[in-house]
Amino acid sequence: MNYYTLFVFLKNSITMLVNNVKLGIIGVGNMGTVHAQNVFSGKVPGLELAAAADRNPVRREWAKDYLPAGFPIFNDGNELIQSGLVQAVLIATPHYDHPPLTIQALKAGLHVMCEKPAGVYGKHVREMNETAIKSDRVFGLMFNQRTNCYYRKMHELVHSGKLGAIKRVSWIVTNWYRTQAYYDSGNWRATWAGEGGGVLLNQCPHNLDLLQWICGMPSKVRAFCHNGKWHDIEVEDDVTAYLEFPNGATGTFITSTADTPGTNRFEITLEKGKLVIEDNKNLILQELEVSEREFCKTAAGGFDQPPLNLINVETDGSNEDHNGVLKAFVGKILYGTPLVAEGTEGIHGLVISNAMHLSSWLDTTISLPVDEDLFLEELNKRRAQ
Amino acid sequence: MNYYTLFVFLKNSITMLVNNVKLGIIGVGNMGTVHAQNVFSGKVPGLELAAAADRNPVRREWAKDYLPAGFPIFNDGNELIQSGLVQAVLIATPHYDHPPLTIQALKAGLHVMCEKPAGVYGKHVREMNETAIKSDRVFGLMFNQRTNCYYRKMHELVHSGKLGAIKRVSWIVTNWYRTQAYYDSGNWRATWAGEGGGVLLNQCPHNLDLLQWICGMPSKVRAFCHNGKWHDIEVEDDVTAYLEFPNGATGTFITSTADTPGTNRFEITLEKGKLVIEDNKNLILQELEVSEREFCKTAAGGFDQPPLNLINVETDGSNEDHNGVLKAFVGKILYGTPLVAEGTEGIHGLVISNAMHLSSWLDTTISLPVDEDLFLEELNKRRAQ
Repeated sequence: MNYYTLFVFLKNSITMLVNNVKLGIIGVGNMGTVHAQNVFSGKVPGLELAAAADRNPVRREWAKDYLPAGFPIFNDGNELIQSGLVQAVLIATPHYDHPPLTIQALKAGLHVMCEKPAGVYGKHVREMNETAIKSDRVFGLMFNQRTNCYYRKMHELVHSGKLGAIKRVSWIVTNWYRTQAYYDSGNWRATWAGEGGGVLLNQCPHNLDLLQWICGMPSKVRAFCHNGKWHDIEVEDDVTAYLEFPNGATGTFITSTADTPGTNRFEITLEKGKLVIEDNKNLILQELEVSEREFCKTAAGGFDQPPLNLINVETDGSNEDHNGVLKAFVGKILYGTPLVAEGTEGIHGLVISNAMHLSSWLDTTISLPVDEDLFLEELNKRRAQ
Repeated sequence: MNYYTLFVFLKNSITMLVNNVKLGIIGVGNMGTVHAQNVFSGKVPGLELAAAADRNPVRREWAKDYLPAGFPIFNDGNELIQSGLVQAVLIATPHYDHPPLTIQALKAGLHVMCEKPAGVYGKHVREMNETAIKSDRVFGLMFNQRTNCYYRKMHELVHSGKLGAIKRVSWIVTNWYRTQAYYDSGNWRATWAGEGGGVLLNQCPHNLDLLQWICGMPSKVRAFCHNGKWHDIEVEDDVTAYLEFPNGATGTFITSTADTPGTNRFEITLEKGKLVIEDNKNLILQELEVSEREFCKTAAGGFDQPPLNLINVETDGSNEDHNGVLKAFVGKILYGTPLVAEGTEGIHGLVISNAMHLSSWLDTTISLPVDEDLFLEELNKRRAQ
């Protein structure tokens, strides 16, 4: 560390001690409330709750009760953004508002942490990303499952190359159980106009992000989305999708909000082994001593199999979840250290979700990249219903 | 038991003790050899190996070496059938020959145990079944996995109705690993002309039979079969299929001969619980105290879940495998006791397999029943290549 970087370090440290990053939370519904409580109670060092906004008077009442007298509470995200009271915003509104609020905040010179999904349709999110790329502000996405030590380790093992190329991916993630009461709790929920989709947009952005983060983007998607199959809703609550990746690997992704007990089992078969995570915990590696591709061609016996080692993979055990994402956000703002997930990466999982919807709507296989205009046209038909 | 049935019982018992059922095995390749050894060494009481046939001189040589001097060994199944030396035949030839040999044997007044699959295409198997229905001879299929105590228990639990209707089925059965040497071991193997398919025809008939036996027949199939993806063969060695059942339940079936370590995990989600069998052993039941369908509509909390009990299901522990199927065959011939699998039931799994092939060939969803003429036309195109 030279004198200059030492100077910057000390300056930022003092800034942080004396003057925390002032955060405004836009939307204090289900998730925004959790974030507001975490930040307000000091669980994210360096981050100070300085304002909140919600369009819903019931949620503003909650904020008034929870926060000190005189705490700035706005009726609308725009007002909060323009207030001059904050350096950063956390956006936890319904999905359609993520891109426009992010764009407004970045343009107003604020750092942005946006809840998942990045938005509802690729075209919207692309505009948001273009603004973010031009901006010098920090833009992160709340992909808290990327902080899970097992998924981090899986990502590390796959990307290290030591297990060779991916051959097959199977994710059964049907443990997103929701009752009818959940869907009845907000009239924007599970509607094309209010939310733009169902389980793919609300519950699965984490899984779709982890899928692309660990395995890369598929090149083809054939999905079977069932709308209102198990609940009185107009969007999908049951999805089975078949994926093909650029290297020829195949995959399935199965999800639902109506299975209880559900399953959460993510399996990746590679040339030199198999990785399995169940219930977001424990990573099992069955590692081959030689590559299956080589073994297949050279083994003398028709039923021979290469020797393997069963490994209960050690991890660092850390799973900082939402607050870990926020800590990294503060770190990036003050010290330039990495985010958990760059905001611009949010488009990837959304594109997979868009491809699944479009495949089901058109009853055909969709090649990626998705035709964004066609997707929006088809989505708008459903929003207008 | 009245005097008459007692008389029949004693007569049959004496017949069996004095005069075993004389069996001819047609085809002493991989499986036929195992059956010949089992029967010859007395592992199936009441069944006596009386003749063998194989078109391959190498396998006839093996039979001559293994069996006593002068043991009847034929060059061809027809000769064995017409020899008058046997009362029953076990057919373990390449798949295309199963229906014609079965038809010949039944018409010659012989009982028939046929190896899986029932045949290669539905039309052929339907003809065989029509002959069997008209015949008074016993006709069974070698679905030895139906003797597995876990699958039997799963079948019993699903069919009891106590767990309600099926909602979802996921079978990942990728533990059929085969090397290139396996495919190189016979020139009929893994060809359209010789075998009529790959992993679906050779390895998966067991799984497809269990699937339909336990869950019933699907009404729609969308499959993605990859030909020669991992081996130098012309047929499929990698399949992912999506299924829909008449009640709206969905399913996936994933198989391959190139995954090692593979997976064998069969999961069924029902209205009142979830059943999982891994690696053909241990049946885990997570049983709900109330039906999910009822709970979903009445629960007050959006994230509530019904209480459940985790049960490691007890079974009778019996898994008689191939010899169990043959014992039941003898029992049916002598006493009219039930077979493990009626021969006419073999068509069901084959129809699913045909639907998967046709779906992949035509790149579309196939509704069942499959158009048998269309399937045969498409198969013949590939056989002629």
